[in-house]
Amino acid sequence: MEDRKISLNQRRTNYCGNFTKDDVNKDVTVMGWVEKQRDLGNLIFIDLRDRTGIVQLAISKPTADEKSFEEAFHCRAEFVVIASGKINLRKEKNEKIKTGEIEIIVEKLEIISKSKTPPFDIAKCENVSLELRLKYRYLELRNKDLQNTFIMRHKIVKHARDFFDENNFLEIETPMLIKSTPEGARDYLVPSRVHKGCFYALPQSPQLYKQLLMVAGFDRYFQVARCFRDEDLRADRQPEFSQIDIEMSFVEQDDVISINEKFIKSLFSKILNIEIKTPFLRLSYEEAMQKFGSDKPDIRFSLEITSLEEAALNSSLNAFKDAINSGGGVYAINLKNKADLVSRKEIDRLIEVAKTYKAKGLFYSKLLKDNKSSNFEKFLSEDEIDKIYKILDAKENDMIFIIADVNKETALVALGALRLYLGEKFNLYNKNDFCFLWVVDFPLFEYSEEEQRLVSKHHPFTMVKEEDLDILTKNPENCRAKAYDLVLNGCEVGGGSIRIHNQEIQNKIFEILKFSKEEINEKFGFLVDAFQYGAPPHGGMAYGLDRLVMLMLQKNSIRDVIAFPKVQNACELMTNSPSIVQKNQLDDLQIKIKD
Amino acid sequence: MEDRKISLNQRRTNYCGNFTKDDVNKDVTVMGWVEKQRDLGNLIFIDLRDRTGIVQLAISKPTADEKSFEEAFHCRAEFVVIASGKINLRKEKNEKIKTGEIEIIVEKLEIISKSKTPPFDIAKCENVSLELRLKYRYLELRNKDLQNTFIMRHKIVKHARDFFDENNFLEIETPMLIKSTPEGARDYLVPSRVHKGCFYALPQSPQLYKQLLMVAGFDRYFQVARCFRDEDLRADRQPEFSQIDIEMSFVEQDDVISINEKFIKSLFSKILNIEIKTPFLRLSYEEAMQKFGSDKPDIRFSLEITSLEEAALNSSLNAFKDAINSGGGVYAINLKNKADLVSRKEIDRLIEVAKTYKAKGLFYSKLLKDNKSSNFEKFLSEDEIDKIYKILDAKENDMIFIIADVNKETALVALGALRLYLGEKFNLYNKNDFCFLWVVDFPLFEYSEEEQRLVSKHHPFTMVKEEDLDILTKNPENCRAKAYDLVLNGCEVGGGSIRIHNQEIQNKIFEILKFSKEEINEKFGFLVDAFQYGAPPHGGMAYGLDRLVMLMLQKNSIRDVIAFPKVQNACELMTNSPSIVQKNQLDDLQIKIKD
Repeated sequence: MEDRKISLNQRRTNYCGNFTKDDVNKDVTVMGWVEKQRDLGNLIFIDLRDRTGIVQLAISKPTADEKSFEEAFHCRAEFVVIASGKINLRKEKNEKIKTGEIEIIVEKLEIISKSKTPPFDIAKCENVSLELRLKYRYLELRNKDLQNTFIMRHKIVKHARDFFDENNFLEIETPMLIKSTPEGARDYLVPSRVHKGCFYALPQSPQLYKQLLMVAGFDRYFQVARCFRDEDLRADRQPEFSQIDIEMSFVEQDDVISINEKFIKSLFSKILNIEIKTPFLRLSYEEAMQKFGSDKPDIRFSLEITSLEEAALNSSLNAFKDAINSGGGVYAINLKNKADLVSRKEIDRLIEVAKTYKAKGLFYSKLLKDNKSSNFEKFLSEDEIDKIYKILDAKENDMIFIIADVNKETALVALGALRLYLGEKFNLYNKNDFCFLWVVDFPLFEYSEEEQRLVSKHHPFTMVKEEDLDILTKNPENCRAKAYDLVLNGCEVGGGSIRIHNQEIQNKIFEILKFSKEEINEKFGFLVDAFQYGAPPHGGMAYGLDRLVMLMLQKNSIRDVIAFPKVQNACELMTNSPSIVQKNQLDDLQIKIKD
Repeated sequence: MEDRKISLNQRRTNYCGNFTKDDVNKDVTVMGWVEKQRDLGNLIFIDLRDRTGIVQLAISKPTADEKSFEEAFHCRAEFVVIASGKINLRKEKNEKIKTGEIEIIVEKLEIISKSKTPPFDIAKCENVSLELRLKYRYLELRNKDLQNTFIMRHKIVKHARDFFDENNFLEIETPMLIKSTPEGARDYLVPSRVHKGCFYALPQSPQLYKQLLMVAGFDRYFQVARCFRDEDLRADRQPEFSQIDIEMSFVEQDDVISINEKFIKSLFSKILNIEIKTPFLRLSYEEAMQKFGSDKPDIRFSLEITSLEEAALNSSLNAFKDAINSGGGVYAINLKNKADLVSRKEIDRLIEVAKTYKAKGLFYSKLLKDNKSSNFEKFLSEDEIDKIYKILDAKENDMIFIIADVNKETALVALGALRLYLGEKFNLYNKNDFCFLWVVDFPLFEYSEEEQRLVSKHHPFTMVKEEDLDILTKNPENCRAKAYDLVLNGCEVGGGSIRIHNQEIQNKIFEILKFSKEEINEKFGFLVDAFQYGAPPHGGMAYGLDRLVMLMLQKNSIRDVIAFPKVQNACELMTNSPSIVQKNQLDDLQIKIKD
């Protein structure tokens, strides 16, 4: 049982990936993992790896002593090794690695830790099953891409902190064991041992606390905060996730937007060396829906939605006429100059996409020169067809898609989905573009069929636009909120609002939401109380950090940017959590599992 | 229902506390809270406050219009106000505030939010009951001292991040919903909704994950991590707390110690402008116990413990002789030149202190010139007394205290407690000193009476000192660990260890701890697995961030440095959490409360 003395300062000259031509002839010591060992008989090559990259070790006798040569001979992938020797200029440069101009002629080499054969090839683990990769996450994380991901994530978060610090924001930690105020998603609960039958909740966000920090006069707050939602996971969700959470006092929407544009601009410049133009485009929710069929439009490409209401009003096609007459809509997109690329099979697929989004059907015209085909033009007069073509500026080799529905939103959302599908299918955008926009003027409320009442679209503390204050009582469903989402390439990366600091308005909102006095008191009593002691106007924003990092690094899933993610059933496969616990743990908490 | 448009950029010229003589004659706009309003009839003064300080507003007609004067007249403490006007040089400087040379001659003033009368005077809330202060924490946090605390805490944490970033550490977030591996303190549990009868635990520390990050090759990790312990709270504990958590690969104890000394040095220099000398003193656990009766000695003052074993060996006092003969000890401290200050009543109190720490009695001699008194010298010969005096260098006006016990530790710990009591009582140290030291060479194990086995003093992954490897099997209770605590002014502010990366040693340790194969597999299987794939030598450290901030800012409780702390029964008084939750929440989790 021997354990070697290793001292970083004395023993490791530099990280593997940092050696250059300038180090030639220097005596160095390196430590790392064996990426590959090649035994040429009298000469052994080892690619030694650490988080910075790879350096080649060359081991041969008598430069290396007998014992070192022996150790090198026994090295296998993922063994941990310490080696010292002299840096040598290589005859032939290896272009594939940073240190390709040099190698280390080894004098001493020792194996520090052995490794079993890894369950998969770490350098090429993309095709390994998710389950196996996550079970051995500590091995997958050795992959160069993943190492780089977490180095970049560190830099992104560091930059965020530097930026908000420079702009007078204070990072203040808010509690994790808080009161359960279910509104929106489901809370994770934590049983209290001291107070039988009582529970804490894990925060879905620091929303209420950050507002209290504004009441407390901290003026500008931020936090990289862990948040929790006990929801059934979709691909892009995790039960625990991180957000960059900010709040400011004495501000209006423009102030929050402006400082966040500065932040994004500096972040992309510093981390990716990409210049993002500010100010970002702003679209109202209404406009975003009308033009893109989405409240988070991907504006890397056009293919905008056009209303055919004018042409459809007295159409001889019943589907068109009925849609308009029932207060619905008829909308179209025009895929310019690509008709020849859309096969019959592709059209079937597009119809399926539209149906997935509840559209009853998809009308199309494929304007090929000699072989025009359409599934609806036969029902229309030439005049009607011309009118539609004119509105859509349809030319030869264009292909137009039309959806009519008695519900405008259904038609728009389905066409929006079709638009995204076509955008990707026909490479209508540059995948390396980063296109930001703000979606503003969200509705303050939406109707919940389930609860048979209006519910807050954002949250109950969101301020209504001044212009709509007059209709708050009579016409709440038409009120717009001082709420804003930041959208990047079709993903919502952040969102926020100006909050209500006025008691009267807040009470009005609670009334519209049909909250009883008891409910208000039970759920938000402390916040309502706090607002009676001099609340400043305030507002803020939160970024989904995982998603922002994912988009910046062009990864496919937020799992790729979280060190130890959970899978869809909320399990972590490496540790097998959640798990059964000991009976005395439950006894302490005075809870039991239902039969 | 009117809501005023406020734009930070256009409307707030600067924070209240930032105006100086250089701003005289400038037109400015300020926003903040009314600290005080004084109505002199034709002239109203308002002290306006924000997080930077106070500025004086002077409101009189006709400079201020009728409406503004009216609003100023109605201002009360904690109203939120916006005001604009011109900066004026004051005739008489107010030395008490930063902006005391100037005032703002107000032209416009508006009340943005009113406030009820606060339940206590925010400027003087030290004497308000803890319960009331915490119920209205958002008001207490407006207090200048508390504002400053969180500004400083932000700076401390920012510096920590900057430092570790500059030194190649990566901040990597580890999960909060993890597997329960009870060993040490009690876990907080989180019921899983998806997996009936299964639970997550909240982390007591990121220990296992940070070791896995080393196995994954990240080389240097840090994180400001939230940790949770479901323990009955002592004054200095919170159920959730933060630690600065670090881990390094390819290092030995000296490396970890050295980089952390650099960190502390830079932290105190940057934040407090105090130069801390490095390297810090290092004491072995044994030495710390012998000299100070504590493994976290306060070395701001001397008053060291001396063994009287030599003098007590054949003492005519049975208490001395018996203690030595049963393998115990006789120890003393000498309070130099203060005998005249120790009253009879004080002696009684000291005897009580000693008893609290399980000492059976306290022997003393008060060496006053004319009035020497002792409770034990009458049992000894003059020679024996002289010998003791000589060992302790006891002179006129010294007072010596002796504790004899059959258990050395009992005697030492009791004397250590007495030492601290005397140090504070007689002002033996400067309260503004910051005295750091490392305590090293901790025992690897300690015997648990409760479990009737050896348990890890630190944790089961702590490496044994090479010198003691030989006795690991035969004599484990004498093995010393590569563990180190950082002590500041008698408080442990951090601690860590070099970890085991060698399978054989790890298995040996598990064996000594009497862990069964099943237990190991169940609790740490993933870590044991991971170590079979090439584990680098590694070690690290964690700081109790709250405690470090508390000591740096010379606060009395960690509650003072946490924005929303919990009280002793783990309640948060502002939100009344934990609380009863809705039945359907428990139904979803398939748990119920025991009858």
